[in-house]
This record gives sequence, C-alpha cells and structure tokens, in this order.
Amino acid sequence: VTGSEVGRTTVKRASERGRYDMAAITSILAAGLIAHVGVIASDGTPVVIPMGYALDGESVLIHGSVASRLMRAKSQVCVTVTILDGLVVARSLFNSSMNYRSVVVLGVPEVLVGDAKLAALLRLSDALLPGRVGHARAPSEQEVRATTVWRLPLDEASAKVRTGPPIDEEEDLDLPYWAGVIPLRMLCGEPERDEACTDRAVPDDVRAVTANINLRGGFRREL
Amino acid sequence: VTGSEVGRTTVKRASERGRYDMAAITSILAAGLIAHVGVIASDGTPVVIPMGYALDGESVLIHGSVASRLMRAKSQVCVTVTILDGLVVARSLFNSSMNYRSVVVLGVPEVLVGDAKLAALLRLSDALLPGRVGHARAPSEQEVRATTVWRLPLDEASAKVRTGPPIDEEEDLDLPYWAGVIPLRMLCGEPERDEACTDRAVPDDVRAVTANINLRGGFRREL
Repeated sequence: VTGSEVGRTTVKRASERGRYDMAAITSILAAGLIAHVGVIASDGTPVVIPMGYALDGESVLIHGSVASRLMRAKSQVCVTVTILDGLVVARSLFNSSMNYRSVVVLGVPEVLVGDAKLAALLRLSDALLPGRVGHARAPSEQEVRATTVWRLPLDEASAKVRTGPPIDEEEDLDLPYWAGVIPLRMLCGEPERDEACTDRAVPDDVRAVTANINLRGGFRREL
Repeated sequence: VTGSEVGRTTVKRASERGRYDMAAITSILAAGLIAHVGVIASDGTPVVIPMGYALDGESVLIHGSVASRLMRAKSQVCVTVTILDGLVVARSLFNSSMNYRSVVVLGVPEVLVGDAKLAALLRLSDALLPGRVGHARAPSEQEVRATTVWRLPLDEASAKVRTGPPIDEEEDLDLPYWAGVIPLRMLCGEPERDEACTDRAVPDDVRAVTANINLRGGFRREL
C-alpha cells in the first residue's frame, strides 16, 4: 500500500511539490499535532473542523463525541494535516510564500469497536501526549462508549511540501530587497500546574511530553 | 453584520465553547497564519487544502492560482482557521484535550476583479508578511491575472475556543497524577538569508515581520 500516484489525490498545482511515497506521508503525519477534517454536511455543504488525530501504522485515527454531527458521516471524508515551517520572503510579493509540509487523506472511515477501539484511543492519547498513558486514568467503559473512533487507511493519500529559499524571477534578483526564509516552529512553554494539583514539581512524564513536542516542532526533515 | 447565532454555524458540541460575537471571530482570524479551505470536488467528495488568507474588515480573503481546481468552485466553501494554544493534561486520558481558538466561515465566495483584486492581494501579502509591502516588488499585471482572489464575508461564521486548566471528574481529583496545561506557541526563528542576497544584515522590515508573528503567536487573548 502506498499513496496513490494517480487519481484524486494527485497534486495538480505546483506539482513539483507533490510527494507520494509512504515514508514522506507518514513522517508528516507523525510530526503534526492537529488535523482539519472535511465532511459534507446533511445540507450538502462542506464543513471543516479541527480534530485531534494519530498516525497508526498506515492509517490515521480520529476521535470525537458520539453526539458529534460530523462523526456520524458514513461517507467520504478528507483529513488534512499541515505543518508550517517558515515564511518565504521573496524579492517580489508574488513569489513570497510559506514553507510547509501537508498531507491530504481521502476515504470512507471505518468505525472501530471493541478491543480495536480501545487500542485506538490509547494510540490517540499517545499522539497528543506522548508517554502519558500509564500516568493518567485509563478510559472507563462509559467514556469509551461516549466516543466514536474512525480509522482511515492511507490508501488514497498525498503529501505536498515546500522547502528552501524563495524562487524569484531572474530579473528581480538585482532588486535592493532582502530575500530569505523566516523559520517557524511550534514550541511548548513551561507547563502550568492546575491549581488543584498538589504535585508541585512537573513530573518526568510531563517533561517528556514537552520534550517530544519540541522535537517534533523543531525537526525540519528534508523529505 | 455579526456571526450568526443560529443555523449551520451554531456550535452543537461542547456548546459552552462556542462564541459568536464578531470581535471574537476577527481577533482569531487576525492572529492565525493559515486557513484550511474545504470545497466539494467535481466528483462530489470533500477536499480540504491549506491556504494563505487575510482578515479584511469583516471578510476573509483567499488567493490561489487561476489554474487551481479548488479556486474554480463557484459553490459553498468552508474556511477554517485554528490556533493551538496548549495541551491540556488531565488526570484521565478522556479529559485530556487541547486549548485552541478556531473560526469556521461558510459561504459562497465572491471572485474579486479590478482595483478590489489588487487591494486584496496587497492585504493578503500584509497578513503573511506584515509591513513587507513597499519592501518588495509589487505584483505585475501578469501576476495579478495569474491569481484568483476570493472574498468571503463573515456573515455565517462562528468561533470555538477552549482555554484554561483541565476539567477532571470529581472522583479523579485525588488521583496521584499531575494535571495542568502545556502552553504551545508558534514562534519565528532567526531569518535565513537567501544565498543570492547581497544584503547580509537582516533589514528592519524583515525584523518587523518576525516581531509581529511572534507577538501573534505569543498572544493568548482571553476572549
């Protein structure tokens, strides 16, 4: 199974930025923190909602409340994950841009039940708060019932990546304007303890979450 | 004109997080860097693509290539902007969450032409690279022609915000687990000069871009 090289997920615009190999797709999904999920609402219009997600092998997992209108969709969905890496400052406004890595996944999600659902919930927790499982109360039966979990395989997925300096027009190169890239990073600040928490020191498991997220945010892998 | 308090953009889930006043909506759109735009593709499936955008008064502007399949849509679109503010570390996995600010805008975009289109392109540049207009070559007629610009009014828009500490179950409060929030921020690194750029010092206009983005990223306004 690899990302399809033809069909609906083929990158048409700026096609030199399109990447289809599974390694590129999974490395972006492993680094991201949030997905934007598109569905078609009951009135036929598109709706895009930010949701937590996890990469799990060659699938993405998405979870939400069983009461969510969005999660009731039984039809095609689109899951898009984007990581901003920089502002591209060109000598012209037109060629100014952003460096980013993004993945688009299309498909009809499978609704998970039973052991697969519980395993997926733990995986979802681990994607958001790496290593926290075992340092927090596990989901109760009632909490599992209150949650819908989707698995969407990466069968129809593509990546789009822009890296590197601005690409200016030849005739613009001598203009007296600075050009380059301003890197962007998502970083964690110092953990802020809940007032009701008597454990004043930030424990190792929370420090590990922070370190992991900072590593993801700072890690600008050349695909 | 204000964000609608009823209808399709009413926040149904976690409705205590829904905000509908225009000030909340515009402050989130002013702070964000990227939008996720949902359209219905010609085969009837939803597609979500990351795109640059700008807040302009009580509208959002979106631009893309005239050759973009997505920008040819004449029908309903959904523009969603999300800013991650923190990881919410609860005493249970179930109540762990994220702090975020997001806006969903629905509508049929107007395609801009003439002076309105050029003004919108400058506004779009200024949203991505604040203050850069005047320190880079302005768009040529050909570049303007090569670009499609949408205006989408905020007539049908809603905001959803989660702030603050975890909300744990009463019976979980005595569990021996740390609880709190790990703040997340999007920050700029040191600008990296293009090799072909002879201007070795980072000029004030680029420093101003960096300062502005860092201010946005670090600014956790209580809505």
